Amino acid sequence: MKVAIIGGVAGGASCAARLRRLDENAEIILVERGPYMSYANCGLPYHVGGVIQDEAELLVASAELFREQFNIDARVNCEAISVDAAAKTVDLRDLTMGDVTTVSYDKLVLSPGAKSVRPPIPGIDLPGIFEVRTVPDTRVIRQWIEKGSPFLSGMHKYSGFQTARPKTRAVVVGGGFIGLETAENLVHRDLDVTVVEMADQILMPLDREMALIAEKHLERHGVRLVLGDGVASFSPAQHGGLDVTTQSGSVYSADIVIVSLGVKPDTMLAKSAGVDIGERGGIRTDDRMVTSDPDILAVGDAVEVRDFVTGEWSLIALAGPANRQGRIAADVIAGRDARFRGTQGTSVIGLFDGTAAWTGQSEKALKRRGDDDYEKIYIYPNSHAGYYPGARPIAMKVLFRKSNRKLLGAQALGLDGVDKRISTLAFALQMGATIDDLAEAELCYAPPYGSAKDPVNFAGMVAADVLSGDMPIRHWDNAEEGFLLDVRELPELAVECVEGVKHIPLGQLRGRVDELPKDREILVVCRSGQRAYYATRMLLQMGLKASVVSGGMLSHFQNGVLDA
Amino acid sequence: MKVAIIGGVAGGASCAARLRRLDENAEIILVERGPYMSYANCGLPYHVGGVIQDEAELLVASAELFREQFNIDARVNCEAISVDAAAKTVDLRDLTMGDVTTVSYDKLVLSPGAKSVRPPIPGIDLPGIFEVRTVPDTRVIRQWIEKGSPFLSGMHKYSGFQTARPKTRAVVVGGGFIGLETAENLVHRDLDVTVVEMADQILMPLDREMALIAEKHLERHGVRLVLGDGVASFSPAQHGGLDVTTQSGSVYSADIVIVSLGVKPDTMLAKSAGVDIGERGGIRTDDRMVTSDPDILAVGDAVEVRDFVTGEWSLIALAGPANRQGRIAADVIAGRDARFRGTQGTSVIGLFDGTAAWTGQSEKALKRRGDDDYEKIYIYPNSHAGYYPGARPIAMKVLFRKSNRKLLGAQALGLDGVDKRISTLAFALQMGATIDDLAEAELCYAPPYGSAKDPVNFAGMVAADVLSGDMPIRHWDNAEEGFLLDVRELPELAVECVEGVKHIPLGQLRGRVDELPKDREILVVCRSGQRAYYATRMLLQMGLKASVVSGGMLSHFQNGVLDA
Repeated sequence: MKVAIIGGVAGGASCAARLRRLDENAEIILVERGPYMSYANCGLPYHVGGVIQDEAELLVASAELFREQFNIDARVNCEAISVDAAAKTVDLRDLTMGDVTTVSYDKLVLSPGAKSVRPPIPGIDLPGIFEVRTVPDTRVIRQWIEKGSPFLSGMHKYSGFQTARPKTRAVVVGGGFIGLETAENLVHRDLDVTVVEMADQILMPLDREMALIAEKHLERHGVRLVLGDGVASFSPAQHGGLDVTTQSGSVYSADIVIVSLGVKPDTMLAKSAGVDIGERGGIRTDDRMVTSDPDILAVGDAVEVRDFVTGEWSLIALAGPANRQGRIAADVIAGRDARFRGTQGTSVIGLFDGTAAWTGQSEKALKRRGDDDYEKIYIYPNSHAGYYPGARPIAMKVLFRKSNRKLLGAQALGLDGVDKRISTLAFALQMGATIDDLAEAELCYAPPYGSAKDPVNFAGMVAADVLSGDMPIRHWDNAEEGFLLDVRELPELAVECVEGVKHIPLGQLRGRVDELPKDREILVVCRSGQRAYYATRMLLQMGLKASVVSGGMLSHFQNGVLDA
Repeated sequence: MKVAIIGGVAGGASCAARLRRLDENAEIILVERGPYMSYANCGLPYHVGGVIQDEAELLVASAELFREQFNIDARVNCEAISVDAAAKTVDLRDLTMGDVTTVSYDKLVLSPGAKSVRPPIPGIDLPGIFEVRTVPDTRVIRQWIEKGSPFLSGMHKYSGFQTARPKTRAVVVGGGFIGLETAENLVHRDLDVTVVEMADQILMPLDREMALIAEKHLERHGVRLVLGDGVASFSPAQHGGLDVTTQSGSVYSADIVIVSLGVKPDTMLAKSAGVDIGERGGIRTDDRMVTSDPDILAVGDAVEVRDFVTGEWSLIALAGPANRQGRIAADVIAGRDARFRGTQGTSVIGLFDGTAAWTGQSEKALKRRGDDDYEKIYIYPNSHAGYYPGARPIAMKVLFRKSNRKLLGAQALGLDGVDKRISTLAFALQMGATIDDLAEAELCYAPPYGSAKDPVNFAGMVAADVLSGDMPIRHWDNAEEGFLLDVRELPELAVECVEGVKHIPLGQLRGRVDELPKDREILVVCRSGQRAYYATRMLLQMGLKASVVSGGMLSHFQNGVLDA
């Protein structure tokens, strides 16, 4: 059995190591076009910022280790340039020496990853414009920042009586994971950072109103955000550096530009092999990671995967699924049954001291598919018991099916405990959990860690109250036309309130019900929704029509959630 | 509908608030024998230590709030002294005034909680011996420490040329949650702390070898542990303070003693009502929290609950289940269907900068029941990507069914990310997840938060490799008679190794296989088990008999896991 594995990061490396464990006698060749086998690409932005100091830390397993410990013919600086599927051979070019060799295979595994999206924007190839995809990328960025450049010298001509050297200016193009992680790391290095994003929000998998929380948090940490405005051109600036001109005509000065516009599957080799490419542009495989050619498998960022919730084909460039697919490919080659169950898109990103994370379907994804069999809630539970120091609210949006009560997706942002709740909800989603399962979950509780009603429980309880009809809810996007009743205490209204709202504190409501209209739906508001729920229960049982505005004032202003 | 709820903390308070939301017209009376309604008893140890500074922080919801916001007849300092189930009345004594009133009910909810176990040890009622059960308890402890006492003055007679006042000495009797949390908090207050525990380990729900990790960590933080030795007597010491004499005859000097020997259900009222008491000594209810009297319900620490995994009756004094039971009782009273699904015993405790947490069955619980349809693994994955600063190993023991691959229980200790993994595994257990579900879970991953193979994935992968036969395993308790092969590098052996072990580094193993016996099982050891797995795969495929010693050297010495 001779197996050629193309691509030595994540999926490819996992496949090679697993295959050796399953078959001591297989002849395994593992080729990587870059200079490093199995490097930690998720760590690259943190190396730019010096959080990860030493480049060597990023090198997970060397080619030598693959050779010595696993008896694998591991080659770096080696590019697969074409596949002859009929002959079952692959041509490899040694990028150091230039010579091409033809290697035969019984099974071929494609793990080429994804390429950066790099649109033909005028000036995109100017010096000073970088990507953050490889270890060498980060090396040149670090050198550019540390040692200066022909462009940076221009800064010293800066006029005025400045007492300090002005900050080096960075423009990051793209508000996705890598762009934002790099932006944060450039702030850590004391650069003046602007993020330019064509969409009207950062972090596209989040719904717009949740992304807003992240945006305010980044701005509070000194990142300038330019949303809804794509880059039109890059050009050399008059006094050094670059001018980044946007489609709206704005110009942003930069000493360094990071382009991070996402990735697309690298299908060059797959196309040369003649295997099927899907409608999303990725290599199409079955759930055993086998392509349309039974002897060619494919894994990682280059393949299309089924969305776990909807069953639709999707592209997800994530390390976890890539590793699991690599293992599955090895199992299948070794004659075992193993299947990939699809992806939920579970993700997390650090935003300075904050965290954003999500799993499953977003509301906009549901809407895009015309799916209206869902309800959503907004809640703001504390990360742990409120009486123990350091408790922080977590902003959570939870989506669930009206018809079968199943969890559909969740998004959360906060300063503490966000990843824990989304990991738990990700597992819940995987197991087909209902909101009742969330309500009844028995999770870790002690005052420093959670609450007797954990945010996950709380989400389930609120959702169940909504579906039972105990808690009819409305959302701010169509609430302000209704009759709004604010049941908070007077000092709270002084801080922020909706204009023209009727105010009766909860404690007085039983005695003042006749101040409310009998013929209109009363939309009850408080800080986060809890007192509004109590009030709504009271009003409903008194025969009035009432509902809770989900998430209360916190949902209205999206202020103070990460930064209270 | 008139409902009397006895006990105003956790279960009782939850029941009262929920019932009001479900029935605006119910007449609800909520009585609490202590001076505070709905206080945060889980926070008491942290108030002793000053982590929670203000006593008022511990008061979650006052009697006034219950009256004003919920229209509930809430009474503190009011003790229920007997129930006449035939007449459907309960006698209440006002502890301030002393007068007794008889209250009728349609439904009665018993939420009396549990009482401290307080064995008749000679001297247990001496001044200076305290419990940590109520807000007044913590107040007297704080005063005793801050202002001194007749006993503390004895310290100043301490002989010698001391330059500093000797530390106040505390003896904590009992190594459970409250005892250890209080011990830590007394260390924070700079007391010299000794914990005396009759059992041969602390934290009884943990298996012995996992508790050992916590014990070493506590000792490293200055807590003196005396295990396997119960207290025989307390007596006034010659020069002030108390002498704590153990059954082995040792004497420990104390200026203050905290007795924390666990709790037992308070069934006084239930017995007066004539409802069934179970064999574990708790009030027996069905899964709707209804006792043997259809008009009397019971919730919280006083009731027996079904173990979620085994179905056996058990006693679990935890806030989360108590709150859920309170809600269920309210639902049932309001005529709804709601059922308690049993408890997993999910728990977490902070141990200085470390954390211990667990869910489901322990190995000793399985053994106690004669259940041998299980396997166990020990793993030590990093809390997040090893290349990102601050990654710490998590010591995990995971138990699963051999016959159906289902998760049975998990225990974890570490400095970071422990509660996250146990909460996720607790949800997995609740949903009946298999080890394959763990392996395939898609959890939050970015370098500061986890790994592409999260510890939960890793647990599932290792467990699946064990059950598939890919990774035969042994455990240290019966490993040392076998032929041990250590595949670590030479410098690692210099740090610690098992005497007489055969040593071949993994990278040399393929070439040196003939140094190994063909007729004996080779037990392979490395640091944590990963290289041993690679070696075992190699040896098995070469026709030798081999297995991995689960958890490797980390499991052998249980050193350096929390304190590397």
